[in-house]
Amino acid sequence: MIEKEKLELPSYIYPEDPWKIIETRFSPKFLPQTETIFTTSNGYLGIRGVFEEGKPSNKDGTFINGFYETWPITYVEEAFGFAKTGQTIVNLTDSKIIKLYVDDEPFYLPTANLIKFNRTLDMKTGTLDREIIWEMASGKKISIKSKRLVSYEHRHIAAISYEVTVLNAKAPVVISSEIVNNDNSFKNGSDNDPRVARRFKESVLKSETFSVEDTRIVLCHSTNNSKMTVASGIEHSLETECENSFISECSKDFGKVVFSIDAEEGKTINLTKFITYHTTRTAPHTSEELCVRAERALNRAKKSGFNDLLKGQKKYLKDFWNKSDIKIAVNSDHEKKSTKKLQQALRFNLFQIFQATVRVEGAGVPSKGLTGEGYEGHYFWDMEIYLMPFLIYTSPLVARNLLKFRYSMLSKARDYSKQLNQRGAMFPWRTINGEEASAYYAAGTAQYHINADIVYALKKYVNATGDYDFLFEYGAEMLVETARLWSDIGFYSQRNGKKFNIHGVTGPDEYNTVVNNNAYTNLMARENLRLAIDTIESIRNIKPELFENVVHKTKFELKELDEWKNAAENMYIPYDKELGIHPQDDDFLNKEKWDFENTPPDKYPLLLHYHPLVIYRHQVIKQADLVLAMFLLDNEFTDEERKKNFDYYDPITVSDSSLSVCIQSIMASKVGYMDKAFDYAKYATFMDLDDIGKNVKDGCHIASMGGTWMLFIFGFAGFNNSNSIPTFNPKLPKQLEKLQFSITIKDSLIEVDINHKDIRYCLKNGKSINIKHQDTKIELTKENSSQKLPLN
Amino acid sequence: MIEKEKLELPSYIYPEDPWKIIETRFSPKFLPQTETIFTTSNGYLGIRGVFEEGKPSNKDGTFINGFYETWPITYVEEAFGFAKTGQTIVNLTDSKIIKLYVDDEPFYLPTANLIKFNRTLDMKTGTLDREIIWEMASGKKISIKSKRLVSYEHRHIAAISYEVTVLNAKAPVVISSEIVNNDNSFKNGSDNDPRVARRFKESVLKSETFSVEDTRIVLCHSTNNSKMTVASGIEHSLETECENSFISECSKDFGKVVFSIDAEEGKTINLTKFITYHTTRTAPHTSEELCVRAERALNRAKKSGFNDLLKGQKKYLKDFWNKSDIKIAVNSDHEKKSTKKLQQALRFNLFQIFQATVRVEGAGVPSKGLTGEGYEGHYFWDMEIYLMPFLIYTSPLVARNLLKFRYSMLSKARDYSKQLNQRGAMFPWRTINGEEASAYYAAGTAQYHINADIVYALKKYVNATGDYDFLFEYGAEMLVETARLWSDIGFYSQRNGKKFNIHGVTGPDEYNTVVNNNAYTNLMARENLRLAIDTIESIRNIKPELFENVVHKTKFELKELDEWKNAAENMYIPYDKELGIHPQDDDFLNKEKWDFENTPPDKYPLLLHYHPLVIYRHQVIKQADLVLAMFLLDNEFTDEERKKNFDYYDPITVSDSSLSVCIQSIMASKVGYMDKAFDYAKYATFMDLDDIGKNVKDGCHIASMGGTWMLFIFGFAGFNNSNSIPTFNPKLPKQLEKLQFSITIKDSLIEVDINHKDIRYCLKNGKSINIKHQDTKIELTKENSSQKLPLN
Repeated sequence: MIEKEKLELPSYIYPEDPWKIIETRFSPKFLPQTETIFTTSNGYLGIRGVFEEGKPSNKDGTFINGFYETWPITYVEEAFGFAKTGQTIVNLTDSKIIKLYVDDEPFYLPTANLIKFNRTLDMKTGTLDREIIWEMASGKKISIKSKRLVSYEHRHIAAISYEVTVLNAKAPVVISSEIVNNDNSFKNGSDNDPRVARRFKESVLKSETFSVEDTRIVLCHSTNNSKMTVASGIEHSLETECENSFISECSKDFGKVVFSIDAEEGKTINLTKFITYHTTRTAPHTSEELCVRAERALNRAKKSGFNDLLKGQKKYLKDFWNKSDIKIAVNSDHEKKSTKKLQQALRFNLFQIFQATVRVEGAGVPSKGLTGEGYEGHYFWDMEIYLMPFLIYTSPLVARNLLKFRYSMLSKARDYSKQLNQRGAMFPWRTINGEEASAYYAAGTAQYHINADIVYALKKYVNATGDYDFLFEYGAEMLVETARLWSDIGFYSQRNGKKFNIHGVTGPDEYNTVVNNNAYTNLMARENLRLAIDTIESIRNIKPELFENVVHKTKFELKELDEWKNAAENMYIPYDKELGIHPQDDDFLNKEKWDFENTPPDKYPLLLHYHPLVIYRHQVIKQADLVLAMFLLDNEFTDEERKKNFDYYDPITVSDSSLSVCIQSIMASKVGYMDKAFDYAKYATFMDLDDIGKNVKDGCHIASMGGTWMLFIFGFAGFNNSNSIPTFNPKLPKQLEKLQFSITIKDSLIEVDINHKDIRYCLKNGKSINIKHQDTKIELTKENSSQKLPLN
Repeated sequence: MIEKEKLELPSYIYPEDPWKIIETRFSPKFLPQTETIFTTSNGYLGIRGVFEEGKPSNKDGTFINGFYETWPITYVEEAFGFAKTGQTIVNLTDSKIIKLYVDDEPFYLPTANLIKFNRTLDMKTGTLDREIIWEMASGKKISIKSKRLVSYEHRHIAAISYEVTVLNAKAPVVISSEIVNNDNSFKNGSDNDPRVARRFKESVLKSETFSVEDTRIVLCHSTNNSKMTVASGIEHSLETECENSFISECSKDFGKVVFSIDAEEGKTINLTKFITYHTTRTAPHTSEELCVRAERALNRAKKSGFNDLLKGQKKYLKDFWNKSDIKIAVNSDHEKKSTKKLQQALRFNLFQIFQATVRVEGAGVPSKGLTGEGYEGHYFWDMEIYLMPFLIYTSPLVARNLLKFRYSMLSKARDYSKQLNQRGAMFPWRTINGEEASAYYAAGTAQYHINADIVYALKKYVNATGDYDFLFEYGAEMLVETARLWSDIGFYSQRNGKKFNIHGVTGPDEYNTVVNNNAYTNLMARENLRLAIDTIESIRNIKPELFENVVHKTKFELKELDEWKNAAENMYIPYDKELGIHPQDDDFLNKEKWDFENTPPDKYPLLLHYHPLVIYRHQVIKQADLVLAMFLLDNEFTDEERKKNFDYYDPITVSDSSLSVCIQSIMASKVGYMDKAFDYAKYATFMDLDDIGKNVKDGCHIASMGGTWMLFIFGFAGFNNSNSIPTFNPKLPKQLEKLQFSITIKDSLIEVDINHKDIRYCLKNGKSINIKHQDTKIELTKENSSQKLPLN
């Protein structure tokens, strides 16, 4: 593996714990990391792990998935068809602020004398908990306990339970609960650094209305250009035996409810803050209507109370872990510090995927979830290729929603393709609203493979769930349009045996751009064409009325089937006989090799230290490309090819993208390099907790987290569902003693328990199912629900 | 030839005349064209052909070559090494304004009743003349005659002679002569159209000082970022028998001298306005010092008077035409309208080159000269490849100055190369101050060939002039650094016979970018390496003290010679045996052919109608690339290769760049397609007068104008100086009866007179010289200065 610069975390940051991510000391130095890691989210609403006090903070953030502002993209040298409109997720009003004053002294972490400090992200309760004991100069000791949650059950609701106890005295206590439009989307840009150019020339959120009533405040704001509106509100319950009163006030961008309590020794003051966000993202609303919705939601939340929300969290997570957990036991011979924490990191990854997707309805999954502003809240291909497999096999309904969301962008994809003088539909490389927002086409728009990636996920989804209704009703139309695109941009070349060539595209590897016959793209395009052909033929036979619908919507003509068949049959897949490998593209093997020996660790990622022209002219790979194709299209490669390809590409893959090592791990498993597979597995699993990419401050790498799941399931457990029967053919690395997980295939929930000697399969729920244990077919039924078989 | 949309000019725009460009009607519709065409310039100062009244105008402009403002280039998706600072030539204070009022009625062209209108750019006097008779509603007729010049002899001086005569009455006449900072550089951008994005967020020119004394006004301004200062001034002489008085006033951005004259019938009022510009471009000056310089220049100009300046113009032009004119006679059988005007257009092209270069000292030649703001006043490779041949053979001192100017950028070229992790020096693709200003690297920075182009021009210059002192003193250092660059970015590939490959570059053709082994680049790089080797070996033998100097300045080591020799000897030049042609690059022949049949005329230029990705994946060529290499490196190709290459590339070359058709014409001549050669010749020659590229409004295509000269001299006259003796091997197209021109080779001025039967060579000036007439060697001496030889 390439040696790169690494961040060292001290032992008080994330000590080992199977179900919790803990910080046992106030560590301002690590705020850039912890603010991301401690994010609470439900896929609709996300609040970064910034303290209730608001300060100190590296980068605060509250986001609604899909709530964005637009801005004109300008190019110094413009060309036809370049993306014109940027889209950036909006950093919304900050509603979590709770400021505490005792004896009129403000509680401020950097100066407070902390007898105790503990922050915990609890992956079973879905809460971010903080426990502090603050000793004041006067000797008064204050216990401050808070619990923050973003509700899974009520997706517009978040809440904070804030408990203050003066332990050894009485004292006047003031708690100021606030909501403020900090205009962070505007402020976070920079005037001087062109790399974080200021997107916005003025405030992004303009006040529409505001209201205050008792302890409830509702603010309503709109964006200037995208014309989206958001209502955000807070409401409070105060429980205490102590004397208290409150005043509240509100203006356009700021509201607060200030509670004054005559705290008595040992008597707890318990303030619950309910938070809500409602937007016009899903339906047109006036600001008044949004405010009404916000008030209704706050009323309901207050009525049922914090505990009710907490119960909901636990229920959702119990269900989640039941279907999605991976349990591992680490071999005691290999109990290195990092390996011991593998279980925790693995669960953290799954938990963050859960937080990024559980209530994502009607939107996509941004590449950072809602944990940060990295990549501006955009949706990319990694949603389909890295995240979808986990969702398909653990939360198929979420998977279906995401595919449906892609379908909703089909019309804009058609428009974009037309604009580029192409037939069919061209899905945007990065987007929120369905329009291409990539301002650097070579590593953006040129990645035509996203079209095939979407189709690939569709196929996997149907495979795993048997949901042919979805395929016929929505999938077919996408298949027609994507097949058309491939058929249009490719051509038959006289020069390589009249094969079907696809030129001028970029594969997943962004260190080799705008190439001819990228093997990954051609393989995936063929798969796309094939699924289009199969689906159209099936639907025509089975559901003629739906077929008519497809014809009507797409103006499909039968002769197109022949076009697609020809293209698929004659698809050119580069292969080098001498080396016995698949060149990544037509020119790849002709390039100069990168001089790894003279590239010091601090020169990675290369893209921050070398001009693209320098990178592009060398054999150096940012992320698994052909190796990814081998994983996705298992049946297209022989064992020998797999090994030769891996041996060739692995040493020149620098994995400067977080999407790489998980795939390298899976293929290392496949070809039997188990130590390497385990090393890559650790690298992938600790990606964010160890901040390996040095950019966790911008958000979690949700796709890599999905990759972690894949490498355990498809890699170590050897799960394969590309043939008629789901198969398990595990290869456990010696560093693991045991690997146990659950997986859902066509309504059957199966638990698989692997050690070095045998596997136990258990049907936990649902219908009987046939599976293959290595080469042995077995049936799991209600009667015979658990079977243990030895490993060859 | 590709059929494209064309502008039709009426007969009153540029009627035929061998020495004048004339407009016989006031034609506001054609202002975008005429304002460029009627530019007066001396290569240092340029004033667009906007009326003295200032209005109506499409785009006004006054420029000093190399006087620019900088601005931060921002990218939505930034990458390492991208150019950071934009440079834009500044549109300076407008000093030509003269407003006329008769009976207090303003003279305004669009509403004036014009009895007569005539504008003439006179290519023998170097003046822009206008003659108008204005009939007022009162019946008064006013004659207005103006002559404008930008002095060739005094490069800081321009002048306008403005004559008013009330022909048939007496009347109060007011002439307001003004100078104004319109802030055009700021205003010309657009807030809405991203293609002409506003470069500047505020006024570009900030007032430093201003002064007024009698009829003299001097303003001084500085730029915000580049910190350049310019003093501009006006001074006046009024000659008239009529009673008159004046007042003058001045503020920061505006000054005027208003003359009030009691005009008597038939008595001419003659106002001369002297204009001057002085900048800190060449030396640091305080604004006070600049103002003093400006006043001195105005004093001197006023003292010697307009006629003196006029004499200077004529003298310079007489000398220019003597050394540079091309005379043609068109065969009467082919007297189509356009062909008849060929002589005029050809002279116009040479005249505009003269205007762009005659006093360019200490700067480069912007691709539009000083005729417009197109390409922001930047210097590109076309200076060396398209302009230099004309200069080398007609004005070698100007050529030398331009090469010296390139040399002055060597240090920044070194820095840029280092920044990109490359050895040697990398000259910027586009620049004013020596720093790369290309914001789209694929068709910018990637054009490494500019390094070899500069060296090529150096070689041609030394060849033609014998100026080895320049080669040794300045050239050698450039040669070492450029040879180093090629040696560094290329590599020996195991896969094509251990040849030396150059990957990831863009050739001249910008419709195929970032390719491997662009034939043009590799051929030119080899030439570069060879000249470096030869020069270093010569200098080491002949001028050891200069060699030590080179070693000291470049840290040159002798072993580098071997490196370069190896690279040159093993340079990979793509060749396709089957087709017998040189592929433009490794992949070119594998690409899909462009569908020309289904590309309507209004879809050209392609770059304005197709996404780069769509263009790049097809066999379609913007401009001569391999064909240009065949022209530049005549000896590297056999006749058969030339023909096969031309036959392959010509039909797929759309010539969307103005740099293309001149070269296509030359090669068509070479391979004997004389009709085609003549068609291309006309296309190239009429490029700007007919506004073929539909962008003359942004300035003249100075490089294409240089190309026109080349196609007559290298094409039709068959001039070749790449071997030991200058050779003429003419191929006159049937449409021409006669071609006569002068050329300077090593201090010998030769006139060549070609018809279809014979050539007459005449030594007009200078030393004896050997030349080759077809295969016959002849010597021209003072005694035997004129020889007539029959054509084979």
